[in-house]
Amino acid sequence: MNASRENPPTASHREAIRALYDAYFETLDDGRLEEWPEFFADECRYRIITRENYEAAQGLCIMQADSKGMLTDRVRAILKTQVYAPRYYRRFYSGLRVLGGTGKEWEVRQNVLIVQTLIDKPSEILGCGVGRDRVVSNASGELKFVDRTLVFDTEMIRNSLIYPA
Amino acid sequence: MNASRENPPTASHREAIRALYDAYFETLDDGRLEEWPEFFADECRYRIITRENYEAAQGLCIMQADSKGMLTDRVRAILKTQVYAPRYYRRFYSGLRVLGGTGKEWEVRQNVLIVQTLIDKPSEILGCGVGRDRVVSNASGELKFVDRTLVFDTEMIRNSLIYPA
Amino acid sequence: MNASRENPPTASHREAIRALYDAYFETLDDGRLEEWPEFFADECRYRIITRENYEAAQGLCIMQADSKGMLTDRVRAILKTQVYAPRYYRRFYSGLRVLGGTGKEWEVRQNVLIVQTLIDKPSEILGCGVGRDRVVSNASGELKFVDRTLVFDTEMIRNSLIYPA
Repeated sequence: MNASRENPPTASHREAIRALYDAYFETLDDGRLEEWPEFFADECRYRIITRENYEAAQGLCIMQADSKGMLTDRVRAILKTQVYAPRYYRRFYSGLRVLGGTGKEWEVRQNVLIVQTLIDKPSEILGCGVGRDRVVSNASGELKFVDRTLVFDTEMIRNSLIYPA
Repeated sequence: MNASRENPPTASHREAIRALYDAYFETLDDGRLEEWPEFFADECRYRIITRENYEAAQGLCIMQADSKGMLTDRVRAILKTQVYAPRYYRRFYSGLRVLGGTGKEWEVRQNVLIVQTLIDKPSEILGCGVGRDRVVSNASGELKFVDRTLVFDTEMIRNSLIYPA
Repeated sequence: MNASRENPPTASHREAIRALYDAYFETLDDGRLEEWPEFFADECRYRIITRENYEAAQGLCIMQADSKGMLTDRVRAILKTQVYAPRYYRRFYSGLRVLGGTGKEWEVRQNVLIVQTLIDKPSEILGCGVGRDRVVSNASGELKFVDRTLVFDTEMIRNSLIYPA
Protein backbone atom coordinates (compact mmCIF):
# COMPACT_ATOMS: atom_id res chain seq x y z
CA MET A 1 0.00 0.00 0.00
CA ASN A 2 2.95 2.34 0.41
CA ALA A 3 6.69 2.72 0.42
CA SER A 4 6.98 1.08 3.82
CA ARG A 5 6.74 -2.24 2.02
CA GLU A 6 10.34 -1.77 1.00
CA ASN A 7 11.37 -2.50 4.55
CA PRO A 8 10.56 -6.16 5.06
CA PRO A 9 9.99 -7.51 8.57
CA THR A 10 12.58 -9.79 10.13
CA ALA A 11 11.71 -13.32 11.22
CA SER A 12 11.61 -12.16 14.82
CA HIS A 13 9.23 -9.28 13.97
CA ARG A 14 6.97 -11.74 12.20
CA GLU A 15 7.06 -14.09 15.15
CA ALA A 16 6.17 -11.29 17.58
CA ILE A 17 3.31 -10.16 15.35
CA ARG A 18 1.98 -13.71 15.11
CA ALA A 19 2.09 -13.94 18.91
CA LEU A 20 0.08 -10.70 19.11
CA TYR A 21 -2.68 -12.16 16.93
CA ASP A 22 -2.66 -15.46 18.83
CA ALA A 23 -3.13 -13.60 22.11
CA TYR A 24 -5.70 -11.23 20.61
CA PHE A 25 -7.94 -13.97 19.28
CA GLU A 26 -7.54 -16.09 22.40
CA THR A 27 -8.69 -13.19 24.56
CA LEU A 28 -11.80 -12.74 22.44
CA ASP A 29 -12.48 -16.49 22.13
CA ASP A 30 -12.33 -16.78 25.90
CA GLY A 31 -14.83 -13.95 26.21
CA ARG A 32 -12.46 -11.74 28.20
CA LEU A 33 -13.92 -8.68 26.51
CA GLU A 34 -12.75 -6.26 29.18
CA GLU A 35 -9.14 -7.01 28.16
CA TRP A 36 -9.80 -6.35 24.50
CA PRO A 37 -9.10 -2.56 24.47
CA GLU A 38 -5.63 -3.23 25.89
CA PHE A 39 -4.53 -4.53 22.50
CA PHE A 40 -4.95 -1.06 21.04
CA ALA A 41 -2.92 2.14 21.17
CA ASP A 42 -4.61 5.11 22.87
CA GLU A 43 -5.07 6.73 19.50
CA CYS A 44 -6.53 4.07 17.30
CA ARG A 45 -9.30 3.13 14.95
CA TYR A 46 -11.35 -0.03 14.94
CA ARG A 47 -13.83 -0.73 12.17
CA ILE A 48 -16.02 -3.51 10.86
CA ILE A 49 -17.10 -2.78 7.31
CA THR A 50 -18.65 -4.79 4.48
CA ARG A 51 -16.43 -5.66 1.55
CA GLU A 52 -18.85 -3.92 -0.77
CA ASN A 53 -18.52 -0.63 1.10
CA TYR A 54 -14.80 -1.05 1.58
CA GLU A 55 -14.15 -1.63 -2.12
CA ALA A 56 -16.43 1.24 -3.09
CA ALA A 57 -14.45 3.42 -0.64
CA GLN A 58 -17.67 4.23 1.17
CA GLY A 59 -17.01 5.02 4.77
CA LEU A 60 -20.22 3.48 6.14
CA CYS A 61 -19.26 0.92 8.78
CA ILE A 62 -21.14 -1.77 10.69
CA MET A 63 -19.18 -0.65 13.71
CA GLN A 64 -16.58 2.05 14.26
CA ALA A 65 -14.55 3.32 17.18
CA ASP A 66 -12.01 6.11 16.92
CA SER A 67 -10.16 5.80 20.21
CA LYS A 68 -9.36 3.31 22.90
CA GLY A 69 -11.93 5.04 25.09
CA MET A 70 -14.64 4.24 22.56
CA LEU A 71 -13.59 0.59 22.60
CA THR A 72 -13.98 0.54 26.36
CA ASP A 73 -17.45 2.09 26.03
CA ARG A 74 -18.31 -0.53 23.47
CA VAL A 75 -17.29 -3.33 25.81
CA ARG A 76 -19.45 -1.87 28.58
CA ALA A 77 -22.43 -1.69 26.25
CA ILE A 78 -22.00 -5.31 25.13
CA LEU A 79 -21.63 -6.59 28.68
CA LYS A 80 -24.76 -4.72 29.71
CA THR A 81 -27.00 -5.79 26.85
CA GLN A 82 -25.93 -9.41 27.03
CA VAL A 83 -29.05 -11.34 26.16
CA TYR A 84 -29.30 -14.74 27.65
CA ALA A 85 -28.99 -17.21 24.88
CA PRO A 86 -25.52 -18.34 25.79
CA ARG A 87 -23.32 -18.48 22.75
CA TYR A 88 -19.65 -18.66 21.92
CA TYR A 89 -17.63 -17.15 19.13
CA ARG A 90 -14.41 -18.73 17.99
CA ARG A 91 -12.02 -17.16 15.54
CA PHE A 92 -9.81 -18.94 13.04
CA TYR A 93 -7.23 -17.03 11.10
CA SER A 94 -5.15 -17.92 8.10
CA GLY A 95 -2.60 -16.31 5.85
CA LEU A 96 -1.12 -13.80 8.29
CA ARG A 97 0.91 -11.50 6.08
CA VAL A 98 3.17 -8.78 7.37
CA LEU A 99 3.25 -6.62 4.31
CA GLY A 100 6.02 -4.27 5.27
CA GLY A 101 6.94 -1.79 7.87
CA THR A 102 9.34 0.72 9.20
CA GLY A 103 10.72 -1.36 12.04
CA LYS A 104 8.24 0.41 14.33
CA GLU A 105 5.02 0.01 12.37
CA TRP A 106 3.68 -2.74 10.14
CA GLU A 107 0.80 -3.41 7.83
CA VAL A 108 -0.71 -6.78 8.53
CA ARG A 109 -3.35 -8.75 6.70
CA GLN A 110 -5.08 -11.97 7.69
CA ASN A 111 -8.19 -13.95 6.80
CA VAL A 112 -10.64 -14.44 9.65
CA LEU A 113 -13.40 -17.01 10.02
CA ILE A 114 -15.80 -16.59 12.93
CA VAL A 115 -17.73 -19.61 14.11
CA GLN A 116 -20.75 -19.15 16.36
CA THR A 117 -22.04 -21.81 18.72
CA LEU A 118 -25.25 -21.82 20.69
CA ILE A 119 -24.43 -24.51 23.14
CA ASP A 120 -27.36 -26.77 22.28
CA LYS A 121 -27.06 -26.25 18.52
CA PRO A 122 -24.47 -27.21 15.92
CA SER A 123 -21.73 -24.66 15.35
CA GLU A 124 -22.16 -22.46 12.31
CA ILE A 125 -20.24 -19.82 10.40
CA LEU A 126 -21.05 -16.34 11.63
CA GLY A 127 -19.04 -14.70 8.92
CA CYS A 128 -15.65 -14.33 7.34
CA GLY A 129 -13.49 -11.61 5.97
CA VAL A 130 -10.08 -10.05 6.03
CA GLY A 131 -8.34 -7.96 8.67
CA ARG A 132 -6.35 -5.05 7.24
CA ASP A 133 -4.42 -3.68 10.16
CA ARG A 134 -1.63 -1.40 11.24
CA VAL A 135 0.41 -2.47 14.24
CA VAL A 136 2.99 -0.35 16.09
CA SER A 137 5.68 -1.05 18.60
CA ASN A 138 5.11 1.45 21.41
CA ALA A 139 7.61 3.12 23.74
CA SER A 140 7.66 0.02 25.97
CA GLY A 141 8.30 -2.23 22.98
CA GLU A 142 4.78 -3.69 23.11
CA LEU A 143 2.85 -4.27 19.91
CA LYS A 144 -0.47 -2.45 19.71
CA PHE A 145 -3.09 -1.97 17.02
CA VAL A 146 -3.26 1.55 15.64
CA ASP A 147 -5.84 0.51 13.10
CA ARG A 148 -7.85 -2.66 12.77
CA THR A 149 -10.27 -2.80 9.89
CA LEU A 150 -12.20 -6.01 9.51
CA VAL A 151 -13.68 -6.27 6.04
CA PHE A 152 -16.59 -8.72 6.08
CA ASP A 153 -17.56 -10.58 2.92
CA THR A 154 -21.23 -10.57 3.79
CA GLU A 155 -23.53 -7.76 4.78
CA MET A 156 -25.79 -10.33 6.41
CA ILE A 157 -24.36 -10.84 9.87
CA ARG A 158 -26.51 -13.43 11.61
CA ASN A 159 -26.45 -11.50 14.81
CA SER A 160 -27.52 -7.93 15.40
CA LEU A 161 -25.29 -7.65 18.45
CA ILE A 162 -21.84 -7.15 17.01
CA TYR A 163 -19.03 -8.74 18.96
CA PRO A 164 -15.43 -7.71 18.37
CA ALA A 165 -13.27 -9.85 16.12
CA MET B 1 -1.63 -22.03 34.29
CA ASN B 2 1.50 -22.36 36.40
CA ALA B 3 5.03 -21.19 37.01
CA SER B 4 6.32 -23.06 34.00
CA ARG B 5 5.18 -20.14 31.91
CA GLU B 6 8.24 -18.28 33.07
CA ASN B 7 10.35 -20.48 30.85
CA PRO B 8 9.41 -19.45 27.32
CA PRO B 9 9.92 -21.88 24.43
CA THR B 10 12.65 -21.20 21.90
CA ALA B 11 11.85 -20.73 18.22
CA SER B 12 13.06 -24.25 17.53
CA HIS B 13 10.85 -25.72 20.26
CA ARG B 14 7.90 -23.91 18.77
CA GLU B 15 8.74 -25.18 15.32
CA ALA B 16 9.00 -28.77 16.58
CA ILE B 17 5.69 -28.46 18.39
CA ARG B 18 4.03 -27.07 15.29
CA ALA B 19 5.37 -30.02 13.32
CA LEU B 20 3.88 -32.38 15.93
CA TYR B 21 0.42 -30.88 15.45
CA ASP B 22 0.75 -30.88 11.67
CA ALA B 23 1.60 -34.58 11.71
CA TYR B 24 -1.07 -35.34 14.31
CA PHE B 25 -3.90 -33.75 12.35
CA GLU B 26 -2.68 -35.17 9.06
CA THR B 27 -2.74 -38.67 10.50
CA LEU B 28 -6.33 -38.21 11.65
CA ASP B 29 -7.44 -36.44 8.46
CA ASP B 30 -6.06 -39.34 6.43
CA GLY B 31 -8.03 -41.76 8.58
CA ARG B 32 -4.91 -43.59 9.77
CA LEU B 33 -6.54 -44.16 13.14
CA GLU B 34 -4.31 -47.06 14.09
CA GLU B 35 -1.35 -44.63 14.19
CA TRP B 36 -3.13 -42.20 16.46
CA PRO B 37 -2.11 -43.68 19.86
CA GLU B 38 1.56 -43.34 18.86
CA PHE B 39 1.31 -39.60 19.38
CA PHE B 40 0.78 -40.18 23.10
CA ALA B 41 3.04 -41.08 26.01
CA ASP B 42 2.31 -44.42 27.70
CA GLU B 43 0.90 -42.58 30.66
CA CYS B 44 -1.48 -40.06 29.26
CA ARG B 45 -4.95 -38.67 29.33
CA TYR B 46 -7.19 -37.87 26.39
CA ARG B 47 -10.50 -36.14 26.88
CA ILE B 48 -13.28 -34.53 24.89
CA ILE B 49 -15.41 -32.34 27.11
CA THR B 50 -18.01 -29.63 26.55
CA ARG B 51 -17.02 -26.08 27.33
CA GLU B 52 -19.88 -25.82 29.75
CA ASN B 53 -18.62 -28.76 31.82
CA TYR B 54 -15.03 -27.67 31.49
CA GLU B 55 -15.71 -24.17 32.77
CA ALA B 56 -17.88 -25.50 35.59
CA ALA B 57 -14.99 -27.83 36.50
CA GLN B 58 -17.32 -30.78 36.12
CA GLY B 59 -15.41 -33.87 35.15
CA LEU B 60 -18.10 -35.36 32.93
CA CYS B 61 -16.56 -36.00 29.51
CA ILE B 62 -17.94 -36.95 26.11
CA MET B 63 -14.97 -39.26 25.83
CA GLN B 64 -12.10 -40.06 28.14
CA ALA B 65 -9.08 -42.35 28.03
CA ASP B 66 -6.52 -42.57 30.82
CA SER B 67 -3.71 -44.47 29.13
CA LYS B 68 -2.29 -45.24 25.74
CA GLY B 69 -3.79 -48.71 26.02
CA MET B 70 -7.26 -47.22 26.31
CA LEU B 71 -6.64 -45.17 23.17
CA THR B 72 -5.74 -48.35 21.32
CA ASP B 73 -8.94 -49.98 22.56
CA ARG B 74 -10.88 -46.98 21.42
CA VAL B 75 -9.42 -47.22 17.93
CA ARG B 76 -10.37 -50.90 17.74
CA ALA B 77 -13.92 -50.09 18.77
CA ILE B 78 -14.25 -47.36 16.17
CA LEU B 79 -12.84 -49.51 13.39
CA LYS B 80 -15.25 -52.31 14.29
CA THR B 81 -18.41 -50.24 14.54
CA GLN B 82 -17.73 -48.29 11.37
CA VAL B 83 -21.13 -47.75 9.86
CA TYR B 84 -21.17 -47.51 6.16
CA ALA B 85 -22.06 -44.01 5.28
CA PRO B 86 -18.62 -43.03 4.13
CA ARG B 87 -17.61 -39.73 5.60
CA TYR B 88 -14.46 -37.73 6.11
CA TYR B 89 -13.35 -35.46 8.90
CA ARG B 90 -10.87 -32.68 8.29
CA ARG B 91 -9.30 -30.61 11.02
CA PHE B 92 -8.25 -26.98 10.78
CA TYR B 93 -6.29 -25.40 13.55
CA SER B 94 -5.43 -21.81 14.35
CA GLY B 95 -3.65 -19.87 17.01
CA LEU B 96 -1.20 -22.51 18.18
CA ARG B 97 0.20 -21.09 21.39
CA VAL B 98 3.01 -22.65 23.37
CA LEU B 99 2.25 -21.14 26.72
CA GLY B 100 5.41 -22.06 28.54
CA GLY B 101 7.40 -25.01 29.54
CA THR B 102 10.35 -26.44 31.31
CA GLY B 103 12.38 -27.30 28.24
CA LYS B 104 11.00 -30.86 28.54
CA GLU B 105 7.30 -30.19 28.87
CA TRP B 106 5.02 -27.55 27.39
CA GLU B 107 1.48 -26.34 27.69
CA VAL B 108 -0.05 -25.86 24.27
CA ARG B 109 -3.31 -24.36 23.20
CA GLN B 110 -4.91 -24.26 19.76
CA ASN B 111 -8.32 -23.66 18.21
CA VAL B 112 -9.71 -26.59 16.24
CA LEU B 113 -12.44 -26.64 13.61
CA ILE B 114 -13.66 -30.03 12.43
CA VAL B 115 -15.38 -30.25 9.08
CA GLN B 116 -17.40 -33.33 8.20
CA THR B 117 -18.08 -34.46 4.66
CA LEU B 118 -20.41 -37.16 3.47
CA ILE B 119 -19.09 -37.63 0.00
CA ASP B 120 -22.35 -36.88 -1.80
CA LYS B 121 -23.29 -33.95 0.44
CA PRO B 122 -21.83 -30.49 1.02
CA SER B 123 -19.20 -30.27 3.74
CA GLU B 124 -20.41 -28.96 7.08
CA ILE B 125 -18.99 -27.98 10.44
CA LEU B 126 -19.00 -30.88 12.88
CA GLY B 127 -17.86 -28.74 15.74
CA CYS B 128 -15.18 -26.47 17.07
CA GLY B 129 -13.34 -25.89 20.27
CA VAL B 130 -9.98 -25.50 21.85
CA GLY B 131 -7.26 -28.03 22.58
CA ARG B 132 -5.58 -27.53 25.97
CA ASP B 133 -2.65 -29.89 25.94
CA ARG B 134 0.55 -30.88 27.65
CA VAL B 135 3.37 -32.14 25.46
CA VAL B 136 6.61 -33.72 26.64
CA SER B 137 9.90 -34.53 25.04
CA ASN B 138 10.54 -38.18 25.89
CA ALA B 139 13.84 -40.00 26.46
CA SER B 140 14.33 -40.37 22.70
CA GLY B 141 13.70 -36.68 22.17
CA GLU B 142 10.32 -37.30 20.54
CA LEU B 143 7.38 -35.08 21.38
CA LYS B 144 4.37 -36.90 22.84
CA PHE B 145 1.07 -35.85 24.33
CA VAL B 146 0.79 -36.41 28.06
CA ASP B 147 -2.58 -34.73 28.13
CA ARG B 148 -4.89 -33.67 25.34
CA THR B 149 -8.14 -32.08 26.40
CA LEU B 150 -10.39 -30.95 23.60
CA VAL B 151 -12.97 -28.51 24.90
CA PHE B 152 -15.93 -28.40 22.51
CA ASP B 153 -18.09 -25.28 22.28
CA THR B 154 -21.24 -27.25 21.60
CA GLU B 155 -22.79 -30.15 23.44
CA MET B 156 -24.62 -31.05 20.26
CA ILE B 157 -22.16 -33.13 18.29
CA ARG B 158 -23.86 -34.11 15.04
CA ASN B 159 -22.52 -37.59 15.24
CA SER B 160 -22.95 -40.09 18.02
CA LEU B 161 -19.80 -41.95 17.01
CA ILE B 162 -17.01 -39.79 18.35
CA TYR B 163 -13.88 -39.70 16.26
CA PRO B 164 -10.61 -38.48 17.71
CA ALA B 165 -9.56 -34.93 17.05
CA MET C 1 6.34 -40.10 -1.26
CA ASN C 2 9.94 -40.60 -2.33
CA ALA C 3 13.59 -40.41 -1.36
CA SER C 4 13.59 -36.63 -1.51
CA ARG C 5 12.08 -36.65 1.94
CA GLU C 6 15.50 -37.42 3.31
CA ASN C 7 16.51 -33.87 2.58
CA PRO C 8 14.54 -31.79 5.08
CA PRO C 9 13.79 -28.14 4.35
CA THR C 10 15.54 -25.44 6.32
CA ALA C 11 13.60 -22.92 8.41
CA SER C 12 14.16 -20.31 5.73
CA HIS C 13 12.87 -22.63 2.99
CA ARG C 14 9.78 -23.28 5.06
CA GLU C 15 9.27 -19.58 5.62
CA ALA C 16 9.58 -18.83 1.90
CA ILE C 17 7.12 -21.60 1.06
CA ARG C 18 4.65 -20.29 3.62
CA ALA C 19 4.96 -16.84 2.05
CA LEU C 20 4.21 -18.39 -1.36
CA TYR C 21 0.95 -19.87 -0.08
CA ASP C 22 -0.02 -16.67 1.73
CA ALA C 23 0.43 -14.70 -1.49
CA TYR C 24 -1.27 -17.39 -3.58
CA PHE C 25 -4.42 -17.50 -1.48
CA GLU C 26 -4.53 -13.73 -1.08
CA THR C 27 -4.44 -13.29 -4.84
CA LEU C 28 -7.37 -15.67 -5.26
CA ASP C 29 -9.31 -14.27 -2.28
CA ASP C 30 -8.97 -10.80 -3.79
CA GLY C 31 -10.33 -12.10 -7.06
CA ARG C 32 -7.19 -11.14 -8.99
CA LEU C 33 -7.65 -14.20 -11.21
CA GLU C 34 -5.52 -12.85 -14.03
CA GLU C 35 -2.47 -13.04 -11.73
CA TRP C 36 -3.14 -16.65 -10.78
CA PRO C 37 -1.19 -18.38 -13.60
CA GLU C 38 1.94 -16.47 -12.57
CA PHE C 39 2.26 -18.73 -9.54
CA PHE C 40 2.95 -21.67 -11.82
CA ALA C 41 5.96 -22.84 -13.80
CA ASP C 42 5.51 -22.90 -17.59
CA GLU C 43 5.40 -26.67 -17.48
CA CYS C 44 2.94 -27.51 -14.78
CA ARG C 45 -0.15 -29.41 -13.86
CA TYR C 46 -3.16 -28.15 -11.95
CA ARG C 47 -5.93 -30.49 -10.91
CA ILE C 48 -9.04 -30.56 -8.77
CA ILE C 49 -10.08 -34.14 -8.06
CA THR C 50 -12.43 -35.83 -5.61
CA ARG C 51 -10.90 -37.77 -2.77
CA GLU C 52 -12.74 -40.87 -3.91
CA ASN C 53 -11.16 -40.74 -7.36
CA TYR C 54 -7.79 -39.76 -5.98
CA GLU C 55 -7.64 -42.67 -3.56
CA ALA C 56 -8.87 -45.09 -6.21
CA ALA C 57 -6.09 -43.76 -8.48
CA GLN C 58 -8.69 -42.85 -11.07
CA GLY C 59 -7.52 -39.98 -13.19
CA LEU C 60 -10.94 -38.38 -13.66
CA CYS C 61 -10.71 -34.77 -12.50
CA ILE C 62 -13.24 -32.03 -11.83
CA MET C 63 -10.78 -29.70 -13.50
CA GLN C 64 -7.38 -30.23 -15.07
CA ALA C 65 -4.83 -28.05 -16.81
CA ASP C 66 -1.52 -29.34 -18.13
CA SER C 67 0.35 -26.13 -18.77
CA LYS C 68 0.47 -22.51 -17.74
CA GLY C 69 -1.17 -21.64 -21.05
CA MET C 70 -4.18 -23.75 -20.14
CA LEU C 71 -4.46 -21.93 -16.82
CA THR C 72 -4.55 -18.63 -18.68
CA ASP C 73 -7.29 -19.99 -20.96
CA ARG C 74 -9.19 -21.10 -17.91
CA VAL C 75 -9.02 -17.64 -16.38
CA ARG C 76 -10.33 -16.11 -19.61
CA ALA C 77 -13.23 -18.54 -19.64
CA ILE C 78 -14.15 -17.80 -16.04
CA LEU C 79 -13.98 -14.04 -16.52
CA LYS C 80 -16.19 -14.30 -19.62
CA THR C 81 -18.87 -16.55 -18.13
CA GLN C 82 -19.11 -14.59 -14.88
CA VAL C 83 -22.74 -14.78 -13.96
CA TYR C 84 -24.03 -11.90 -11.98
CA ALA C 85 -24.81 -13.17 -8.56
CA PRO C 86 -21.87 -11.48 -6.89
CA ARG C 87 -20.12 -13.88 -4.60
CA TYR C 88 -16.79 -14.16 -2.85
CA TYR C 89 -14.58 -17.11 -2.08
CA ARG C 90 -12.20 -17.05 0.83
CA ARG C 91 -9.62 -19.70 1.50
CA PHE C 92 -8.35 -20.85 4.89
CA TYR C 93 -5.42 -23.18 5.12
CA SER C 94 -4.00 -25.20 7.96
CA GLY C 95 -1.23 -27.69 8.55
CA LEU C 96 1.20 -26.56 5.87
CA ARG C 97 3.74 -29.37 5.71
CA VAL C 98 6.87 -29.28 3.64
CA LEU C 99 7.45 -32.98 3.35
CA GLY C 100 10.94 -32.95 1.94
CA GLY C 101 12.85 -31.71 -1.01
CA THR C 102 16.06 -31.48 -2.89
CA GLY C 103 16.83 -27.86 -2.04
CA LYS C 104 15.28 -26.92 -5.41
CA GLU C 105 11.99 -28.79 -5.26
CA TRP C 106 9.63 -29.59 -2.41
CA GLU C 107 6.55 -31.62 -1.75
CA VAL C 108 4.00 -29.58 0.17
CA ARG C 109 0.72 -30.52 1.73
CA GLN C 110 -1.92 -28.32 3.33
CA ASN C 111 -5.60 -28.49 4.30
CA VAL C 112 -7.84 -25.99 2.53
CA LEU C 113 -11.28 -24.75 3.53
CA ILE C 114 -13.15 -22.64 1.01
CA VAL C 115 -15.90 -20.37 2.27
CA GLN C 116 -18.40 -18.91 -0.18
CA THR C 117 -20.34 -15.73 0.44
CA LEU C 118 -23.20 -14.31 -1.56
CA ILE C 119 -23.17 -10.80 -0.24
CA ASP C 120 -26.75 -10.80 1.02
CA LYS C 121 -26.59 -14.32 2.47
CA PRO C 122 -24.69 -15.91 5.35
CA SER C 123 -21.29 -17.33 4.46
CA GLU C 124 -21.17 -21.08 3.95
CA ILE C 125 -18.61 -23.78 3.35
CA LEU C 126 -18.10 -24.42 -0.36
CA GLY C 127 -15.84 -27.37 0.27
CA CYS C 128 -12.66 -28.59 1.85
CA GLY C 129 -9.82 -30.85 1.01
CA VAL C 130 -6.09 -31.17 0.84
CA GLY C 131 -3.54 -29.66 -1.53
CA ARG C 132 -0.77 -32.07 -2.55
CA ASP C 133 1.73 -29.96 -4.38
CA ARG C 134 5.20 -29.78 -5.80
CA VAL C 135 6.97 -26.45 -5.67
CA VAL C 136 10.24 -25.56 -7.38
CA SER C 137 12.73 -22.76 -7.08
CA ASN C 138 13.25 -21.52 -10.64
CA ALA C 139 16.34 -20.00 -12.27
CA SER C 140 15.51 -16.59 -10.77
CA GLY C 141 15.09 -18.09 -7.33
CA GLU C 142 11.31 -17.65 -7.36
CA LEU C 143 9.06 -20.38 -6.03
CA LYS C 144 6.57 -21.74 -8.55
CA PHE C 145 4.07 -24.58 -8.56
CA VAL C 146 5.01 -27.46 -10.83
CA ASP C 147 2.04 -29.46 -9.66
CA ARG C 148 -0.96 -28.47 -7.60
CA THR C 149 -3.49 -31.19 -6.94
CA LEU C 150 -6.42 -30.20 -4.81
CA VAL C 151 -8.16 -33.28 -3.46
CA PHE C 152 -11.73 -32.40 -2.47
CA ASP C 153 -13.52 -34.40 0.22
CA THR C 154 -16.89 -33.99 -1.43
CA GLU C 155 -18.00 -34.67 -4.97
CA MET C 156 -20.87 -32.27 -4.39
CA ILE C 157 -19.44 -28.85 -5.12
CA ARG C 158 -22.21 -26.35 -4.57
CA ASN C 159 -21.28 -24.41 -7.63
CA SER C 160 -20.98 -25.68 -11.16
CA LEU C 161 -18.56 -22.91 -12.08
CA ILE C 162 -15.26 -24.05 -10.64
CA TYR C 163 -13.04 -21.31 -9.32
CA PRO C 164 -9.34 -21.96 -8.67
CA ALA C 165 -8.23 -22.72 -5.15
